[in-house]
Amino acid sequence: MDKPTLYIGNKNYSSWSFRPWMALTGAGVDFEEVLIPFDFPGGNPDIKALSPTGRVPFLRHGALKISESLAIIEYAAELYPQAGLLPGDRADRALARSVSMEMLSSFQTLRSACPMNIRRAKAKIALPDGMEADINRIETIWRDLLQKSGGPFLFGGFGGADAMFAPVVNRFDIYDLVSRNDTLAYMETMKAHPAWRKWEEAARAEPWIVEEDEV
Amino acid sequence: MDKPTLYIGNKNYSSWSFRPWMALTGAGVDFEEVLIPFDFPGGNPDIKALSPTGRVPFLRHGALKISESLAIIEYAAELYPQAGLLPGDRADRALARSVSMEMLSSFQTLRSACPMNIRRAKAKIALPDGMEADINRIETIWRDLLQKSGGPFLFGGFGGADAMFAPVVNRFDIYDLVSRNDTLAYMETMKAHPAWRKWEEAARAEPWIVEEDEV
Repeated sequence: MDKPTLYIGNKNYSSWSFRPWMALTGAGVDFEEVLIPFDFPGGNPDIKALSPTGRVPFLRHGALKISESLAIIEYAAELYPQAGLLPGDRADRALARSVSMEMLSSFQTLRSACPMNIRRAKAKIALPDGMEADINRIETIWRDLLQKSGGPFLFGGFGGADAMFAPVVNRFDIYDLVSRNDTLAYMETMKAHPAWRKWEEAARAEPWIVEEDEV
Repeated sequence: MDKPTLYIGNKNYSSWSFRPWMALTGAGVDFEEVLIPFDFPGGNPDIKALSPTGRVPFLRHGALKISESLAIIEYAAELYPQAGLLPGDRADRALARSVSMEMLSSFQTLRSACPMNIRRAKAKIALPDGMEADINRIETIWRDLLQKSGGPFLFGGFGGADAMFAPVVNRFDIYDLVSRNDTLAYMETMKAHPAWRKWEEAARAEPWIVEEDEV
């Protein structure tokens, strides 16, 4: 079968696209990429027509279309077991899925008040109720996993769980939300990763402005 | 190692507890169960103290604590590969994860307006905007998978993806939200499963009333 194709939205704004793209790129998976910008009122009709959920990201591999960022990462981990997308140890693998799914299901306050925006200059904003709880929980997850693994990534080497938190690294950075040294060190590690730099460079070169994500 | 222990909330109301409990029970996994009722203002202090996320469900296995319903199902699928929690075919497994994660991340309108309530007598309620889109998308997921597999469950035999949608079956039923024959047939299949009946019987026997979930 041909290599898989990852369909993504704008690199500057699409946090859910960033996750599987960074996971697959960081793990050295060979894939094609199709970017469909979502700068249409009411959404891009191409995305609605192509995607099973009407959203990006999704992965097409032959006749199979897989939506949900973490399901894409799990599929790539099965296709390329040596890529390190999931920890090799069963207990660690369970924890990686646990925190990745907490990212998928939670932190609504942070996600809605602080859109990912790769290009944005660092500046604080007024924070709604509930933001502190989201930030504290994420810092606790990172601290506990980094202490256990010894770092520099959550489970030692780079993997899918790091990629699931990549947009949070951007949010913590651009809205100036955190000050713990261990948090800041992990963020620097993530931002120095070659996959991050490649995504960031492409995001900065994009012409599209999505006003509702400019906070 | 001892068998795993699943910590759950009230069987009548805890939709996230129902998912892994039904998956593990339906797949014949041998586990201990600890129920911590959440009938305290501000939440039950036992749950906050024991759970990594401060929420139920979580699975304890030796020193390992796994939160998130779907991460618990993935762990059980690794421990008991013959239990059928995930489809044996790789493409089907990717689809099972995809729709299970869509359940985890989406359908906020349905989830907030229509709390799971096993005991509730069937009666319609006024529906907020967005409900129809949630219902249509779930019916499409079920229809497409049942047509592909031939049923009676989403991937043929009972598995984790069915369990992830179990609380939706209850919601569709008690709030009288659906009328498609294929949807109703799948709901009857789920409600006739021995694991469903066992959970339902226990829920009906619980003494606790959670007013905010009585809609």
